[in-house]
Amino acid sequence: MTTTQLITQIRKKKSFLCIGLDVDLQKIPKFLLETDDPIFEFNKAIIDATHHLAVAYKPNTAFYEAYGIKGWQALEKTIQYLNTNHPEIFTIADAKRGDIGNTSSMYAKAFFEDLAFDSVTVAPYMGKDSVEPFLAFQGKHTILLALTSNQGAFDFQTKIIADKEVYKHVLETSKTWKNSENLMYVVGATKASFLGEIREIVPESFLLVPGVGAQGGNLQDVCKYGMTDNIGLLINSSRGIIYASTEVDFASAAAKKAAELQSQMTAILEA
Amino acid sequence: MTTTQLITQIRKKKSFLCIGLDVDLQKIPKFLLETDDPIFEFNKAIIDATHHLAVAYKPNTAFYEAYGIKGWQALEKTIQYLNTNHPEIFTIADAKRGDIGNTSSMYAKAFFEDLAFDSVTVAPYMGKDSVEPFLAFQGKHTILLALTSNQGAFDFQTKIIADKEVYKHVLETSKTWKNSENLMYVVGATKASFLGEIREIVPESFLLVPGVGAQGGNLQDVCKYGMTDNIGLLINSSRGIIYASTEVDFASAAAKKAAELQSQMTAILEA
Repeated sequence: MTTTQLITQIRKKKSFLCIGLDVDLQKIPKFLLETDDPIFEFNKAIIDATHHLAVAYKPNTAFYEAYGIKGWQALEKTIQYLNTNHPEIFTIADAKRGDIGNTSSMYAKAFFEDLAFDSVTVAPYMGKDSVEPFLAFQGKHTILLALTSNQGAFDFQTKIIADKEVYKHVLETSKTWKNSENLMYVVGATKASFLGEIREIVPESFLLVPGVGAQGGNLQDVCKYGMTDNIGLLINSSRGIIYASTEVDFASAAAKKAAELQSQMTAILEA
Repeated sequence: MTTTQLITQIRKKKSFLCIGLDVDLQKIPKFLLETDDPIFEFNKAIIDATHHLAVAYKPNTAFYEAYGIKGWQALEKTIQYLNTNHPEIFTIADAKRGDIGNTSSMYAKAFFEDLAFDSVTVAPYMGKDSVEPFLAFQGKHTILLALTSNQGAFDFQTKIIADKEVYKHVLETSKTWKNSENLMYVVGATKASFLGEIREIVPESFLLVPGVGAQGGNLQDVCKYGMTDNIGLLINSSRGIIYASTEVDFASAAAKKAAELQSQMTAILEA
């Protein structure tokens, strides 16, 4: 999916909501555990109930790997279900990968070609030649960890190198990499006040923003400092939506939570 | 496996060789492609031919994920084969994971409990709460990316924060994390001259050292600057060993290459 197509979807749906599909078998409704593939059945129900409210879905691969082969199969079925039934949805493999060149190429192949995700999250620590193999895939997007939503972000990301923070070096340096037009960035909603300075460095890039809701980030602040003429934001909510209820009404409860966020987004977009 | 047990194995085998099981179906002998599980058959033959020469094996997960379900199954069979037949071998999941707390816990569960690896490589960019969930597993080891072997290491890792390089902050800060005794570090052989200063910060920790051979690193230099009284080094070679031949003699050719490195290690250990 191209960035232009993503922007069109955001304007059409009046939503820049991304729903995180982080499926924990201990948190989903018990009756689903009796089905053949509880992870996929959960995802399918959530997608069916919320696809008109969201422009993106983001499975975090950790939650699938934790269940071994069955988890990996559920991930495959989920992305196939999305690509088959909702090709207009932007898909994000939240995998936070990154390795030396030939190895990053294997990861890129896995997520962009075999699983056919539109994008994948990538860690920047190993630098240029660990990220460029992802950027080489045309029509695909690489979402680089810049300033993450967790407390540990202050361990290294906000430390000062020369005259600026590490994450700003990541932003600036990444712009010099080949095919950098395929880059997006992860910026946590818990760091909304940093967004003004981030926009000075990457005025147009899409930002994937986790941390609204459960982690304490505020939607209005994120939009105030981070929104561009083309929106430039995907706001992710995972637990706040998918675990709204653990009963048989879980999908409609998820839709209700998604609708709440989506209506706030509509108000912001129409303001 | 405890660090003491690892040191005992190194002294017994007179080897601190780690063999990287980075299986690319385009590089393995063609006749293996006709078997039911070419990746596992390749690994099994390499392990059978080299297990007396190496103390550790390191599958890089990218090469398994690239083949989807079949790749993941081959990874499971490989670690099971190692744990069943060679429980004295130290196993490393080269996964370079790292995420916010609850998500890192899922990765730790996947690699330490379900797959039963002794250790996993983890990226430091997201800081303390992204690494501590791995450190919480007793008897398991977390191998933190410090100074990697690739050119991109100079993009961020060697930049100066205040008075020292980012990777030194990673080393120093990680020592303050809970259960930091379970830490090891990745330091590329291509950066051997940095090892003296690294040893000032982490005098005892084991270092996993990739980059000898194909990437140009030198074994003697690594040992000169990095070896401790308890050795403290695992030297990894992947392509240089496992792709020594692409014919039917691939396993014996791999053993020959492994034996060359192991005999150099023996000489160093006996010097």
